Amino acid sequence: MLIGEYRHTLDPKKRLSLPSKWRKEMGKKLVITRGLDNCLFVYPLKEWQKITEKIGQLPLGQADTRGFNRFFLSGAVEVEVDSVGRILVPDFLKDFAALDTKTVLAGVHDRVEIWDEKQWDDYKHKVEQQADALAEKLGDVGVL
Amino acid sequence: MLIGEYRHTLDPKKRLSLPSKWRKEMGKKLVITRGLDNCLFVYPLKEWQKITEKIGQLPLGQADTRGFNRFFLSGAVEVEVDSVGRILVPDFLKDFAALDTKTVLAGVHDRVEIWDEKQWDDYKHKVEQQADALAEKLGDVGVL
Amino acid sequence: MLIGEYRHTLDPKKRLSLPSKWRKEMGKKLVITRGLDNCLFVYPLKEWQKITEKIGQLPLGQADTRGFNRFFLSGAVEVEVDSVGRILVPDFLKDFAALDTKTVLAGVHDRVEIWDEKQWDDYKHKVEQQADALAEKLGDVGVL
Amino acid sequence: MLIGEYRHTLDPKKRLSLPSKWRKEMGKKLVITRGLDNCLFVYPLKEWQKITEKIGQLPLGQADTRGFNRFFLSGAVEVEVDSVGRILVPDFLKDFAALDTKTVLAGVHDRVEIWDEKQWDDYKHKVEQQADALAEKLGDVGVL
Amino acid sequence: MLIGEYRHTLDPKKRLSLPSKWRKEMGKKLVITRGLDNCLFVYPLKEWQKITEKIGQLPLGQADTRGFNRFFLSGAVEVEVDSVGRILVPDFLKDFAALDTKTVLAGVHDRVEIWDEKQWDDYKHKVEQQADALAEKLGDVGVL
Amino acid sequence: MLIGEYRHTLDPKKRLSLPSKWRKEMGKKLVITRGLDNCLFVYPLKEWQKITEKIGQLPLGQADTRGFNRFFLSGAVEVEVDSVGRILVPDFLKDFAALDTKTVLAGVHDRVEIWDEKQWDDYKHKVEQQADALAEKLGDVGVL
Amino acid sequence: MLIGEYRHTLDPKKRLSLPSKWRKEMGKKLVITRGLDNCLFVYPLKEWQKITEKIGQLPLGQADTRGFNRFFLSGAVEVEVDSVGRILVPDFLKDFAALDTKTVLAGVHDRVEIWDEKQWDDYKHKVEQQADALAEKLGDVGVL
Amino acid sequence: MLIGEYRHTLDPKKRLSLPSKWRKEMGKKLVITRGLDNCLFVYPLKEWQKITEKIGQLPLGQADTRGFNRFFLSGAVEVEVDSVGRILVPDFLKDFAALDTKTVLAGVHDRVEIWDEKQWDDYKHKVEQQADALAEKLGDVGVL
Repeated sequence: MLIGEYRHTLDPKKRLSLPSKWRKEMGKKLVITRGLDNCLFVYPLKEWQKITEKIGQLPLGQADTRGFNRFFLSGAVEVEVDSVGRILVPDFLKDFAALDTKTVLAGVHDRVEIWDEKQWDDYKHKVEQQADALAEKLGDVGVL
Repeated sequence: MLIGEYRHTLDPKKRLSLPSKWRKEMGKKLVITRGLDNCLFVYPLKEWQKITEKIGQLPLGQADTRGFNRFFLSGAVEVEVDSVGRILVPDFLKDFAALDTKTVLAGVHDRVEIWDEKQWDDYKHKVEQQADALAEKLGDVGVL
Repeated sequence: MLIGEYRHTLDPKKRLSLPSKWRKEMGKKLVITRGLDNCLFVYPLKEWQKITEKIGQLPLGQADTRGFNRFFLSGAVEVEVDSVGRILVPDFLKDFAALDTKTVLAGVHDRVEIWDEKQWDDYKHKVEQQADALAEKLGDVGVL
Repeated sequence: MLIGEYRHTLDPKKRLSLPSKWRKEMGKKLVITRGLDNCLFVYPLKEWQKITEKIGQLPLGQADTRGFNRFFLSGAVEVEVDSVGRILVPDFLKDFAALDTKTVLAGVHDRVEIWDEKQWDDYKHKVEQQADALAEKLGDVGVL
Repeated sequence: MLIGEYRHTLDPKKRLSLPSKWRKEMGKKLVITRGLDNCLFVYPLKEWQKITEKIGQLPLGQADTRGFNRFFLSGAVEVEVDSVGRILVPDFLKDFAALDTKTVLAGVHDRVEIWDEKQWDDYKHKVEQQADALAEKLGDVGVL
Repeated sequence: MLIGEYRHTLDPKKRLSLPSKWRKEMGKKLVITRGLDNCLFVYPLKEWQKITEKIGQLPLGQADTRGFNRFFLSGAVEVEVDSVGRILVPDFLKDFAALDTKTVLAGVHDRVEIWDEKQWDDYKHKVEQQADALAEKLGDVGVL
Repeated sequence: MLIGEYRHTLDPKKRLSLPSKWRKEMGKKLVITRGLDNCLFVYPLKEWQKITEKIGQLPLGQADTRGFNRFFLSGAVEVEVDSVGRILVPDFLKDFAALDTKTVLAGVHDRVEIWDEKQWDDYKHKVEQQADALAEKLGDVGVL
Repeated sequence: MLIGEYRHTLDPKKRLSLPSKWRKEMGKKLVITRGLDNCLFVYPLKEWQKITEKIGQLPLGQADTRGFNRFFLSGAVEVEVDSVGRILVPDFLKDFAALDTKTVLAGVHDRVEIWDEKQWDDYKHKVEQQADALAEKLGDVGVL
C-alpha cells in the first residue's frame, strides 16, 4: 500500500531514500517521469505498465493527446533502487519539479509523488479546506 | 455488519475502544484516514483494498481527482487493534476531525466513522428531518 | 411471501408479534431500522444483506448519499425473534416512528413495515385513490 | 394460455368459478390483489413470483414506487382453488373492485382479471375503437 | 413460409379454407384474434407463443399497454383446422373485421391475416404507391 | 458472389435467363417479390430466410411497418429455376416493375434485382455522378 | 501488407502489373470495382468478402444505401492475375476512372487503389498539407 | 519500453542509429511512415499491425478518413535494422519531416518518432508549459 506522506532530504548527489514501508511494494526497478501539478511521478514497474497501456489507447488523432503522451512518455526514465533504498533523481527531472533539498514523498495508491516540501504544504492545506466540495463535484459527474 | 452507533471516550493517550460487536468483522489491522464531513473514516483492510481499487480508477487528467486522491490516500495510516480492542488515533487526524474526549463511532456498512459527539448529534438530527427528501433526490437520479 | 397487512398491538414492554404466516420466511434474526414515510423497516437477514450491498455501492462523493447511508445504517439494530414470535422494538425507533399501542404490519415483498395504525389508514386511503396515476408515472419513466 | 373472456356469476358466498380451460394452467394456489383500472388481478403462483421479483427491483428512494408497492403487495392475499374450481374473493377486494354478481374474467397472458361486467363492456368498447391508435403510440416509443 | 395472397370464400357456416401451401407450416392448432387495421390475425401456435411472450413484457404501469393487451389477448380464441383444411371464424371476430363472403388471406411471415376483399384491395393499392416512402421512413429511424 | 450487371431478354412466355456465373450461388429455388425503386427483388432461399427473419422483428405497433411487411411479404412468390437456368416472372410482378422485353439483372450481394433496361441506365448514370456524396452521407451517419 | 505507392504503366491491352511485393498477399483472384474519389478499388478475395459482408448489413430502407450498394456491387468484376503478375482492367472501369497510360497503385491496408497519375499527385499534395487537420477532425469525432 | 528521448545524427548516407536500449524491443523490421506534427512515425512490426488493424476499421464513407488512410498507409515503407543498429531513412520521408543532420528520437510507448532537433526542442518547451492544462482537457472529455 503506497499511502501516507514522508519528509526526506535530497542529498548533494541527488539521491533520495524511499520510506522503508514502501520498499517491498515498490521493488527494485522504478520509472520516474514528469508529473502533473509540478511534481514527479514514480511508478513501480508493474504499475507503469498498466498506466502506459491505458495511455497507449489514447486517440492518435488529437494534438492534445499526442502532446500529453510526449510529455509523459518521452520524459520517463527507468531507475534502480540501490542497496540502501535510494534512487537517483535525473537532473532534468529535478529541474522540472524545482526540487531543492527538502522534499515530500506522498503515496497515492499506485504511484509515489515527489514534491518540493513548501509546494506540498501549500497544496495540502488547500485540499483539506476543499475536500467536501471536491468530493461533491466528483460525485456529481459520477466518478466517485 | 458494521451498523449502529456507539458513544465512546477518547482516552488521554488518544486510544479509542471499538464496539465489541464489530471486532470480529473489523479484524486486527485497520486503515484510518481523513474523511468527508469532518469525521475520520476507518476501514477494515479488505474494504480499504476495495475502495482504493475504485479510487485508483479515477481519471488521472483532472486536477480535482488528483486533489481528492492526495487528500484521501496520503492522509491514510495503517493502525493495529490492541489486545483489549483499542486503536490509537494519530495526532494529525485527531486535529483534522476536531476530536475532544466524547466521540461517536457510527457504522456505515463497509466503514466506521469517528465523529466528535456534538457534531454527530447535530448532523443526525438534520438527516432524520430530511430523510424522505434525501431518498427522493437519490431516487430521481436513479441511485437508490 | 411477505404480503398482506396485519393489525397487532405493541405491548407495554414494546414487544410486537409477527404474523404467523411470515415467521418461517422471516427467520429468527431480523434487522430493524429507520424507514421512509415515518415507519420502521424490518428485514430478514438475507434481504438486509442484499439491500446493504446495494446501498454500499452508492457514490461516496455526494453528501446526500452519505446522509442517507448514515440515516439508514447507523440507525439499524439486529433483533431476535423470541420463542412466541415476538420482537422487541428499541425505544429510539419507537420514538422515531411515533408508535403507540395500535400498529399495522405491512408486507412489501422483501421487507415488513411497522406503522402507527392511524397513519397507515390515512396513507392507504390516499394510495388507493391514486394507484392508476402512480402506475402511469412509473410506466412513463420505464420502471414499471 | 390465459386468453379469452368469460362471464361468470359471483355467488352469494362470494365464490367465483374459474373457466375450465384455464384450470390446469392456473394450478391450485393463486394470489389475488388490488389491480389497476378498478379490477382485480389474479396470478398463478409462478407468475406472481415473477412479477414481485420485478417489482422488488423498483427503486426504494421514490415515494411513488413505495406507494405502488404498498398498494399492490400489502393488498395481496393467497387463495386456494376448491375442488369444483372456485375461488373465494375477500370482502375488501370485492369492495375495491365494486363487484356485484355479474363479473367478467379476462385472460391477459400471465394474469386473469376480474371485472364488474358493466365496467368491462364499457372499457372493451372503448379499446376496440382505439386499438390502431394505441398500437401506434406503443410503436412510437418502441415498446411494441 | 407464410407469404403471398389468396382469395377464398367464407362459407355460410363461417368456415374458411387455408391455402394448401401453408397447411404444413400452420399445423393443426391456431390462435385467431382481433388484429390491427380492421383485419384478423391468425397465428400458428408456436408463433403465438413468441408474440405473447413479447407482449407479456410490455410495461404494466401504462394504461395504453394494458388496453392493448386486453384488446389482443382477451379477444383471442384457439381454433382447430378440420380434416379438409378449414377453420371456423367466431362470430364476434367476423363482426369485428366486417367480413362478408369474399375474403383475402395474406401471408406476412409469422402470421396470416384475414381481410374483407374490398378493404384489402384498397389497402394494397395505397401501399404499393407508398412503398419507397414507407421504406425510407423506416430506414430513417433505423428499423429497416 | 452476386455482383455485376447483365442484360437479358424477357421472352414472350415471361421467362428470364439467370447469368450462368450466378447459378450455383442462387440454387434451384428463389423468392421473387415487389422491390423498392420500381424493380423486383430476387433472393436465394437462404438469403430470403435471413431478410424475413430481420423483417419479422419490425415493430408490430406501427402502421408503417405493417404496411411495408404486407407490401414485401404478401407480394412474394416462390419460383423454381428450370433446367436451362430460367425463371418465370409472374404477371402481377411484371406489371409492378413495368418490365418490357429488355431487362437488366443487377447483383447486389445478397439479392438480384430485375430492372427495365431504360430505367436502370437512367438510375445508374445518376448514381455514378453522386457516389462520393452518397458515401459521405452514409459516413456521416455512421453506416459506412 | 498493402502499403506504399507504385507508378506503373497501363499497356495498350489494358493490362497492369501489380508490384511484386504485394503479389503473395493479393493472391490470384481479385475483385475490381468503381471506387470513391474517381479511382478504382481492388480487393483480394478475402478482403472483398469482409467488405461486402459489412455493406450487406447496410439498411435496406434508405434510398441512399441502395444507391451506394448498386454503385459498388453491380460495378464489381472478378479478375485473375496472369502468370507474370498482371491484371486486365475492364473498359467500363478504365473509363470510369479516366485512366490513361500512367497510373499509380496505392496500398491502403486492405485494398489497392488505381489512380490516374496526375490526379493522384494533386490529391497527395493536398492531403500532405492537411494531414494534422484531418487527424484532428477524426480525433474530435472519436474515430482515430 | 519505448520511452525517453535521444539525440542522434543522421549520417550523409541518411542512416540513423537506434538507441541501444530500444533495439531488442524494436526487432529487426520496422515500418516508417509520414507522421503527424511534421515528424516521422516508426513502428515495430507488431505495433504496426495493431495500428493498421485499427485504422482499417475507419469508416470507408468519409472523404476525411480515406484521405488520412492514404497519407498514412501509402506513405509507409518497411525498413530493416542493419547489423550495427541503423535504419535508412527514405528520401521522400526525410524531405517530408524536413530533417537535417541533428535529430531527436522520442519514445512514445508503441512507436518512436524522429524529429528535427530544433523543432522538437520548441515543441517540448511548449508542452511542458501546458501539461496540466492538456491533462485537464483530456480529463474533461474522459480520455485520461
